[in-house]
Amino acid sequence: MRPTRRDLLKSSLAAAAATALPTSAQTFTRSHTTHRALTPAELHANYVKCDAAAARPVFRRDLFPNPVIIDTIELLHYKKSWLCRVRSKDGAEGISISNAAQMASLYPIFVDRIAPYWLGLDARDLEKHLDLCMVYQSNYKATGMAMFVPLATLEFAILDLFGKLVDKPIGLLISDKIHNPSIAVYQANGERYISPEETIEHLQRDVAISHAKAIKFKLGGRMSHVETPPDRSARLIPMVRKTFGDQMVISADSNGSYDVAEAIRIGKIMQEYKYAFYEEPVPFDDYDGLQQVADALDIPIALGEQEPSTWNFRHVLAHNAVGIVQQDMFYFGGMVRCMKVARMAAALNKQCIPHISSTGLGYVYMMHFVSAITNSGPFHEFKEFNNDLPYKCDTSTLRASSEGIITVPTGPGVGVEIDPDYIKKHEVMKVIKPANFKDAE
Amino acid sequence: MRPTRRDLLKSSLAAAAATALPTSAQTFTRSHTTHRALTPAELHANYVKCDAAAARPVFRRDLFPNPVIIDTIELLHYKKSWLCRVRSKDGAEGISISNAAQMASLYPIFVDRIAPYWLGLDARDLEKHLDLCMVYQSNYKATGMAMFVPLATLEFAILDLFGKLVDKPIGLLISDKIHNPSIAVYQANGERYISPEETIEHLQRDVAISHAKAIKFKLGGRMSHVETPPDRSARLIPMVRKTFGDQMVISADSNGSYDVAEAIRIGKIMQEYKYAFYEEPVPFDDYDGLQQVADALDIPIALGEQEPSTWNFRHVLAHNAVGIVQQDMFYFGGMVRCMKVARMAAALNKQCIPHISSTGLGYVYMMHFVSAITNSGPFHEFKEFNNDLPYKCDTSTLRASSEGIITVPTGPGVGVEIDPDYIKKHEVMKVIKPANFKDAE
Repeated sequence: MRPTRRDLLKSSLAAAAATALPTSAQTFTRSHTTHRALTPAELHANYVKCDAAAARPVFRRDLFPNPVIIDTIELLHYKKSWLCRVRSKDGAEGISISNAAQMASLYPIFVDRIAPYWLGLDARDLEKHLDLCMVYQSNYKATGMAMFVPLATLEFAILDLFGKLVDKPIGLLISDKIHNPSIAVYQANGERYISPEETIEHLQRDVAISHAKAIKFKLGGRMSHVETPPDRSARLIPMVRKTFGDQMVISADSNGSYDVAEAIRIGKIMQEYKYAFYEEPVPFDDYDGLQQVADALDIPIALGEQEPSTWNFRHVLAHNAVGIVQQDMFYFGGMVRCMKVARMAAALNKQCIPHISSTGLGYVYMMHFVSAITNSGPFHEFKEFNNDLPYKCDTSTLRASSEGIITVPTGPGVGVEIDPDYIKKHEVMKVIKPANFKDAE
Repeated sequence: MRPTRRDLLKSSLAAAAATALPTSAQTFTRSHTTHRALTPAELHANYVKCDAAAARPVFRRDLFPNPVIIDTIELLHYKKSWLCRVRSKDGAEGISISNAAQMASLYPIFVDRIAPYWLGLDARDLEKHLDLCMVYQSNYKATGMAMFVPLATLEFAILDLFGKLVDKPIGLLISDKIHNPSIAVYQANGERYISPEETIEHLQRDVAISHAKAIKFKLGGRMSHVETPPDRSARLIPMVRKTFGDQMVISADSNGSYDVAEAIRIGKIMQEYKYAFYEEPVPFDDYDGLQQVADALDIPIALGEQEPSTWNFRHVLAHNAVGIVQQDMFYFGGMVRCMKVARMAAALNKQCIPHISSTGLGYVYMMHFVSAITNSGPFHEFKEFNNDLPYKCDTSTLRASSEGIITVPTGPGVGVEIDPDYIKKHEVMKVIKPANFKDAE
């Protein structure tokens, strides 16, 4: 029996009411409100809204009356840690913690192809240079995580510097106000090649600790490979609902495991058991298949963690192929680029639940971003902080409360201080502007 | 005055007849045969054709009755040179010359994220493992040149090994027969920030040397930036036609410089002056904008040099948004992946003119590929070989003739021998399979 739209809404609202939601007492957003194809006029109207939203500046340049010239950019490396330190000509300093797993193979791109572009520029022109940096050395030809993780690493350090200059958290550098001072988290299980029974056990174990009011687990075999054990998805979906009851907000992620027919079959089971959203039903770059799945289902579809293109987000949003965008703070290239996508989604009444890769303090960047958006989903993934990093944060425990709520830091910049003695252990690679530097070529 | 379809066809055929075309006495293929939107049934039929073409195996596994187990993979580095050497358990050896400009920042990806997957596998399962390697360590999340240049580097070495085992050139490992034993070249000018007059001078200088019967030059400001000098494109297009006359086959490449309106304006000028094809009118990932441009113009549209997704090629082909696909031999990840796209294009009566990045012997890989496809465009870009590489080739001069024709090598594998003393100068990085290796996870 397929649930009606009213059933789905009721279920989600009931679940939302049962949690202490800080600011977003809302349900997840549907991809479609109708199942017919959009008329050309409707599609055009969606594009006009997206383009207007994306055209609005993100970085609050108005806070900085004087030039902030980038003097040095350093990549700092120690064991598995990669930091970025930026200093201005006037002696201001910002630091970021990179995505260590990715930077271990992407550091030459940071040093040779991204950072040199920025030396000597006025950092207040951040937004313009995020675009031009992709034209520099034809970087756009390597569009994807390989370029965007280094770019985000640099942007986060620049924003930390700006935040310290005016004593404001990063959220207030990309938004006029803090929309979400705290964030409700969901509990995720990332295992895939274990039995349904084991998956249930692990979710129960973790929810007992985190007290999360929402959970998510993995479906399928990852990127169209055979599922192990066979038919795990179809068995697991009802079991999770039965185990955790009607009040739990439950979602599931296939990581592009299915073809269109199987994606629809699984999606209908999720609908039957009142799941909240369905993440990546088909391979992430099969936009035609995605559209077919979205047209066939009522459940909100979420996606975007490895999508590198603002154009593609615009396409799937305008075509109502997605209800929730999940751009990754590192993989998509930082706060400004991520905000453009969140605003396009907001313009079409769709939500944003940014994806966060990496250990380290990746989650802190995600929290600052969520604090600054108007269309946050009701729950966000929480990944444990890397305890190897000695830091202090005076304005947040950086831990979820017994109600599954986490407070966004309010100190200047990132709002987290890394132990200076730990920073000193790092080897410093100083970026030198290459002799053949040409602007925007 | 807009030319009719008959005018365009006549002009292209006349130009083709005037050159000594080795095997492809044909014109360039149009994106559309009609300007109306496809019906759902027509679109579906196109997808069925694409999928059937892409499903056919590329690698000629039938030539190899016995397992070929990969024993070692080495990345060799000396100054600006990056080579890859693969050896099988039975002592067979293959070598490839990588794209040096890209490998200079991508070598950690080759060593840490691509090559380890392949050790101990039966290389005859090449096609399966090209896909699974992208799931290994979630490599697909970094889809793009960063993954595919290392992957192509490895595939070229494996194909060289296979070719030497059965004394066949690479073309006969990916096709039942050689369709193009020689290739007509076009003369390209890559400058963009010079005046129309200078562009003409440089083209005249280069055509006098190469005797090419076709030319191509750059339009716009690269990826939506302001053109310098102003309105260079609109002035240059008529000047080139006037200078080189009606018999010259002329194309131009905007590298994604324009928005939709400007792309159409420039395209109409190109049509007026009977240009052969129009390369990358809008940013490469703006598929919606591309469709609008294709629907408004008659001139064949060519694109694909930085497209990383087979799904996206399928989309633009099935929607008649493109007449000529230009997947890059390195950026798109090697012969097998490139052949799938060429065959999808062939199934819809569209052409392939593969893009080649890199100096070194990149052009040789492109020649082998062109030799093996049924839908080659009539002219291909020729880039000078890097003279730093000491090699010999007994079966081709690897130079264009006085008629602008170049012969594809017919020796085993790549058909080019690199001086062993030069190889010995390289530092060798041997790839070790990591302890945490898990198949397809």
